[in-house]
Amino acid sequence: MTRSLKVAALAGGVGGAKFADGLSRCLPPDDLTVIVNTGDDFEHLGLTVCPDLDTVCYTLAGMANPQTGWGLKGETFHALESLEALGGPEWFHVGDQDLGTHLERTRRLKLGQTLSQVTSHFCEAWKIRPRVLPMTDGPAPTVVLTSEGELPFQEYFVHRQCLPRVSGFRFEGIEQARPAPGVLEALRTADLVVFCPSNPWVSINPILAVPGVRRELEEGRRRRGLPVVAISPIIGGKTVKGPAAKMFSELGIVPSALAVAEHYGRLCSGFVLDLLDEKLVPEVQRLGLQTLATGTLMNSDADRLRLAVEVLDFFGGVRK
Amino acid sequence: MTRSLKVAALAGGVGGAKFADGLSRCLPPDDLTVIVNTGDDFEHLGLTVCPDLDTVCYTLAGMANPQTGWGLKGETFHALESLEALGGPEWFHVGDQDLGTHLERTRRLKLGQTLSQVTSHFCEAWKIRPRVLPMTDGPAPTVVLTSEGELPFQEYFVHRQCLPRVSGFRFEGIEQARPAPGVLEALRTADLVVFCPSNPWVSINPILAVPGVRRELEEGRRRRGLPVVAISPIIGGKTVKGPAAKMFSELGIVPSALAVAEHYGRLCSGFVLDLLDEKLVPEVQRLGLQTLATGTLMNSDADRLRLAVEVLDFFGGVRK
Repeated sequence: MTRSLKVAALAGGVGGAKFADGLSRCLPPDDLTVIVNTGDDFEHLGLTVCPDLDTVCYTLAGMANPQTGWGLKGETFHALESLEALGGPEWFHVGDQDLGTHLERTRRLKLGQTLSQVTSHFCEAWKIRPRVLPMTDGPAPTVVLTSEGELPFQEYFVHRQCLPRVSGFRFEGIEQARPAPGVLEALRTADLVVFCPSNPWVSINPILAVPGVRRELEEGRRRRGLPVVAISPIIGGKTVKGPAAKMFSELGIVPSALAVAEHYGRLCSGFVLDLLDEKLVPEVQRLGLQTLATGTLMNSDADRLRLAVEVLDFFGGVRK
Repeated sequence: MTRSLKVAALAGGVGGAKFADGLSRCLPPDDLTVIVNTGDDFEHLGLTVCPDLDTVCYTLAGMANPQTGWGLKGETFHALESLEALGGPEWFHVGDQDLGTHLERTRRLKLGQTLSQVTSHFCEAWKIRPRVLPMTDGPAPTVVLTSEGELPFQEYFVHRQCLPRVSGFRFEGIEQARPAPGVLEALRTADLVVFCPSNPWVSINPILAVPGVRRELEEGRRRRGLPVVAISPIIGGKTVKGPAAKMFSELGIVPSALAVAEHYGRLCSGFVLDLLDEKLVPEVQRLGLQTLATGTLMNSDADRLRLAVEVLDFFGGVRK
């Protein structure tokens, strides 16, 4: 028996998508809104590519490639092969079906549709029932400050494979960005907000940097005791995937679940860390955070569901 | 034994590509220049698509789909299927490998390369040795005047499947178009010019309408007796492929090889028609044209080669 528990989840790429999928497996669709980072979005071959939105949507639709977590199941790469044979750029490994997504998104954006409208239409076509929102409809590209100068996120992440040493981040134009329609409302009406196990620096921070988002969370916390819970993407000092741990190190912080908890600090009321890091629980609690230590690796659909149920039970406190 | 015979071939789509391929099988690569119609070029999904250039190149590279004559061998359509599932436009049946071509062409054009440069680069990548030139580097889109108003060529040809009744044609911006580098030189140095069996209205006429092209041919004819030979795309009153016969009818002309010969008139010195139309030979000769009646259907690679050899033997007059 479950009574209605409205959840807003902030998500980036693969880890975020998996947890959002876990939530979608145990919440009625109307009770879940996933707010997705668009700082990674970029233009490639003239097409607007939204890596995190696509990863979240492909995952929620059950279309994601189970090996990589991103891209599509049964994908082919014939267009890329043909383009490579002509000397085109091959660093962004785009598949044929995925290309269809980018082509159609770009076409609709050029017709004047907003990214929210396109995303909503895609979700309908892909039969995704929870609400998926981009953090903003405007551009707010993440720029990585590195030992080699400023790099656009995809250049750093895919082309340079996260090799340059990071010294900071910039979310270009974020001051002018407006939360996409529905984002603030979802936070305002949520009974629980979850920061999915996504990169704190380049997945969750860009969302929090959209004007109004952080304030809405702080007010929710203060006025009505809104539980805001982060799930650590760092397990045993390492990230499951992606450069979060490397980024902490290069910024002079020892990477750990504790470092993630400190990163979010008082914006959160709760924190989920892996059993492997159980010894950090007292220190995290000293930060004023309620903690749940459990298995956070999501290797199977069942893992996603179990973790989501545990988080909802523990922090939502409404399931019996 | 063959001495050098420089040939310039004007070509449109499938029929033109097949004959150009026949020429490439019996001429040294340096002796053949194929000048290709770009009036069909259009923008689709933000990409610059050049149907005739691609058909000619794919055919010369041995990459063309043997069933259709256009598109690529072993092609897949995953991007299109994915785009269709999202409600995208499905009328232009673009394959995945073909998409790679359009993406890379568009990328290079956006970098400031000319269509000639891109085409030359593609030919090198595809190991095409004869020279393939677009008629012009600038836009000169063919507009079809129909019972339903003016239609861009691809809209008429692919989307509306040539159904609207034709009343004329317009080559937009052709007055400002300049022949692509090499086009006039190829005509000036040619020992033989061939109009491939392509649509006279929308494949060959656009090339002839590029300022300077017709004059170069007329001067070649007058000053040095340059043989200019057209191959009829109409056999027994019908076209092998495409709307040429329908266009003649709708313009009030009974479609036949004779009608094609009359269409080109004194611009040509020679004419090739199918054995099926041998009875028309006297009438064509009355127009002042030297005629060759032979099998002009190209169902196999051997047909292409044989027809090319016959045309070169008869009109080039230099093989023994």
